[in-house]
Amino acid sequence: MRPQARRAAEADLAEARMGLAGAYVAEPKQADKKMDLGRGLQAVAAGGEVGELFRYDIAMPVTLPRRQSAMLPIVNQEVKGQKVSIYNPSVHAKHPLNGLRMTNSTKLVAPFHGGERMLGTNPIAIAFPGLEEPPIVIDFATSATAYGKIEIAKRRGSKIPSGWAVDASGTPTEQPDGMIQGGALLPLGSFAELSGHKGFCLAAMVDVLCCVLSGANWGPFAPPFALRQEIPARSVGQGIGHFFGALRIEAFIDETEFKRQIDDWIRTFRATRPMPGTEGVRIPGDPEREAEADRSVNGIPLIEPVIRDLEEIGRIIGAKFGT
Amino acid sequence: MRPQARRAAEADLAEARMGLAGAYVAEPKQADKKMDLGRGLQAVAAGGEVGELFRYDIAMPVTLPRRQSAMLPIVNQEVKGQKVSIYNPSVHAKHPLNGLRMTNSTKLVAPFHGGERMLGTNPIAIAFPGLEEPPIVIDFATSATAYGKIEIAKRRGSKIPSGWAVDASGTPTEQPDGMIQGGALLPLGSFAELSGHKGFCLAAMVDVLCCVLSGANWGPFAPPFALRQEIPARSVGQGIGHFFGALRIEAFIDETEFKRQIDDWIRTFRATRPMPGTEGVRIPGDPEREAEADRSVNGIPLIEPVIRDLEEIGRIIGAKFGT
Repeated sequence: MRPQARRAAEADLAEARMGLAGAYVAEPKQADKKMDLGRGLQAVAAGGEVGELFRYDIAMPVTLPRRQSAMLPIVNQEVKGQKVSIYNPSVHAKHPLNGLRMTNSTKLVAPFHGGERMLGTNPIAIAFPGLEEPPIVIDFATSATAYGKIEIAKRRGSKIPSGWAVDASGTPTEQPDGMIQGGALLPLGSFAELSGHKGFCLAAMVDVLCCVLSGANWGPFAPPFALRQEIPARSVGQGIGHFFGALRIEAFIDETEFKRQIDDWIRTFRATRPMPGTEGVRIPGDPEREAEADRSVNGIPLIEPVIRDLEEIGRIIGAKFGT
Repeated sequence: MRPQARRAAEADLAEARMGLAGAYVAEPKQADKKMDLGRGLQAVAAGGEVGELFRYDIAMPVTLPRRQSAMLPIVNQEVKGQKVSIYNPSVHAKHPLNGLRMTNSTKLVAPFHGGERMLGTNPIAIAFPGLEEPPIVIDFATSATAYGKIEIAKRRGSKIPSGWAVDASGTPTEQPDGMIQGGALLPLGSFAELSGHKGFCLAAMVDVLCCVLSGANWGPFAPPFALRQEIPARSVGQGIGHFFGALRIEAFIDETEFKRQIDDWIRTFRATRPMPGTEGVRIPGDPEREAEADRSVNGIPLIEPVIRDLEEIGRIIGAKFGT
């Protein structure tokens, strides 16, 4: 099973758990195929169901001639909490393209020096293929941490590090519930002295490229894609937005030479003298590949509160946990 | 005088000071016009002198038809510490394009969990035009802080915050000299728990797009562009590299509608409830515009050690300070 699929499965569980907490279990969600082709968009995508996941098919084939790049605006209409699996960097990286993906998401993050949720975790992903080495795969949220880490800390009953979040009053907090109950995540960089304004800049860039450019709902107006999240009071566009880009390597430099240099880059950075007390430098994509190899054999580690949740969900829906 | 020009002038002073410390004063540097058109590059730029600055002229005009974007690889050959002023976001933002610029630079930054300099401060800049509001101008180094802030702390005789740098042994340091004497800056995010790996991802992205894609020297092999910096032992390409991109807004959405939405975005984010004890949210580009307006009237604040340096340089070269 690919990490993407597992991530979707985890999201499922998270949503089911939320349903459970509210004393009901979520209905299986139907992928929404409606697309609005208006607003002057030049390239659109249509939705298609792929098992329990959701896939975009580009309605109009886009080819990349020499010296050109393509950017596709994609808009979801009437988002209903469906799961989205558009892009798997470890698959796309096999093609001779540098792929770039960004997505806006429901508000969870405060802008720098803001005291309330205004932005999604607005991730950036880009991958570069090597020749003999596995690809460099960059894929991260532009917040100081992932919301999931706040939830795990809450279930563990532990505090969160200073720099992750503010509470409902906008004051920095080390309590998971401080963030969960009306607080906000901080942008990458966290504090003024560690350049939290740069994380806000990144989130702003993703927000404008994904949403303003495609005519989708930006910033605090992005519709929720999990159950029981706040519905924005105002709509400034259509659904949530994405931004995809692909660069044809041959338009810049010989493709084999590029891949050979990427191999050299990877080996050079792997050989960096380590910071004492750490495992040293790992290439973006390495931790995920290692985790996949390990968990395919040894399974996914779960903490006790999650196991109890899964057992409870199993009892309600009549599925035995652990089979 | 534009901020870009002032920044160049400041770099001049910094270089002159470095020369002074080494008991000689730097000769005025000549911009280098040599370009190598080889290595399969499809678009190249030629250098031209503009007063004391250096300008790139695109050798082959590049037009952007509907639905297309252009990416230009630019390589410097035999970089000799010349000053470079390629892109002024506050000027470019007037055109109906979203401009993107990245540049690699001499090694100063450790990769995440690395204990030595391997990357430049590898900045990212992108600007979005508004209709009535001034443009959103994003422009930042992907390190936790700028090298200049380490130098200022040294001249002030003050410590630096935890999270800015490691010393020559790769151990986190709060002493400016710890970083300056063979240490390294940390990437944006600084520590594992504040996602320092994300700053490394950003620096890696800039490094590959600017250098590997253009056939320039990447990572620790970028040649120095200030005096008396270490010459890399190995060359993996030509000079330093840049990456420029421009997106034609009309290819995605009506241009006036885009700009109106940018105005709305700016006003919405300005109205964010502030974090207590801060001045609240400012839009990327606001602080620079405010500083320019203030300093055009009130001058540039200097600390005592810098004034003494300038007076000493003035005595050596026969120019009176303060005229």
